[in-house]
Amino acid sequence: MTDTVDTAVLGHAAPHHLHLDTVTRDYAALRLKSVRGHVEGVMKMLDDPSVYCVDVLKQLSAVQGALRKVSEAVLKSHVRDHVVTAAARGDSDVIVEELMEALKYRA
Amino acid sequence: MTDTVDTAVLGHAAPHHLHLDTVTRDYAALRLKSVRGHVEGVMKMLDDPSVYCVDVLKQLSAVQGALRKVSEAVLKSHVRDHVVTAAARGDSDVIVEELMEALKYRA
Amino acid sequence: MTDTVDTAVLGHAAPHHLHLDTVTRDYAALRLKSVRGHVEGVMKMLDDPSVYCVDVLKQLSAVQGALRKVSEAVLKSHVRDHVVTAAARGDSDVIVEELMEALKYRA
Amino acid sequence: MTDTVDTAVLGHAAPHHLHLDTVTRDYAALRLKSVRGHVEGVMKMLDDPSVYCVDVLKQLSAVQGALRKVSEAVLKSHVRDHVVTAAARGDSDVIVEELMEALKYRA
Repeated sequence: MTDTVDTAVLGHAAPHHLHLDTVTRDYAALRLKSVRGHVEGVMKMLDDPSVYCVDVLKQLSAVQGALRKVSEAVLKSHVRDHVVTAAARGDSDVIVEELMEALKYRA
Repeated sequence: MTDTVDTAVLGHAAPHHLHLDTVTRDYAALRLKSVRGHVEGVMKMLDDPSVYCVDVLKQLSAVQGALRKVSEAVLKSHVRDHVVTAAARGDSDVIVEELMEALKYRA
Repeated sequence: MTDTVDTAVLGHAAPHHLHLDTVTRDYAALRLKSVRGHVEGVMKMLDDPSVYCVDVLKQLSAVQGALRKVSEAVLKSHVRDHVVTAAARGDSDVIVEELMEALKYRA
Repeated sequence: MTDTVDTAVLGHAAPHHLHLDTVTRDYAALRLKSVRGHVEGVMKMLDDPSVYCVDVLKQLSAVQGALRKVSEAVLKSHVRDHVVTAAARGDSDVIVEELMEALKYRA
């Protein structure tokens, strides 16, 4: 937040001077590594010609749940660090639109 | 479906003589490979200390969308090959419970 | 299922000889009456100029949860009475497409 | 926002000096009236002993879609009027927790 780039200049572009905090970044990276491992596990399941559909569905759901947790963490960090400060910073319009868009994306 | 294992014996266990068809299995494996690449892409994003939260959220949503498509394909294959034939096969109770459970899992 | 209307004649139209069972119909009607009451409760909340957004959001979520329960019951009844019997009845294609469509609709 | 009630005093209680804006309140009330009508329509469908499950599921999905639109409007109004101003107002912690909770509720 030390950056003073004028968002008016950026227009509706993402305000790139706002960053994901380090703790959440590390947490997300760690979780995604585990998600990748989980995806590889499902890929291995699919090598088995006698795999049962419902077992695959359960594993895919578990992966989605794990991804959702990563999203929640990133979202919370974004709200806490960038959304609540938007009025003070003066880029509320962009931040609100972006957040609503990001929430729409949520699976 | 030539298998005649009695599901009454298996109780609520998955009827393991039912398999995910080859076409869907190959499709799912291919898509998951792409999902893994996508996850690695997000991991790389997270190496950048100036990554913006909303950009991460968007990528995570895209990954979830891709996973959802895999789930849809597996689910459709399961319904087509195993659910519609349950009454004829005689394991409707297990199949219905399992399906409702699998749908609950859906993100 | 005593009805013998040929689904081949109906083509992809909903097989109208299949009915929601009475128990589920009564249950759904009862729950929807309660949902209507809940919606009216939120409408009353909105008459209050000092109502807090988050309190409205919570009530709307509760209503959606209640609706979801009704959907689950109707879905389960449909799978149990009409989907598992589709192969035996000979209208699997229509039933599968319809179910996948209905699941897509799920909020 | 002229109210200066100290949120520290309120603890985690909702900051009741924050109100849903009139335009969104009126919009939400109008939409909910239509949702109520829609719910009554489904109730009427359920009076018909030959109603088809999938037709009920479709209507329930439509109702949920309509409710979701109301939620979106209330959420956007909340973010725009209360979340982006939280740091300036000094109640960020409560506002962040509440928002994350409200988003969890989302169907």
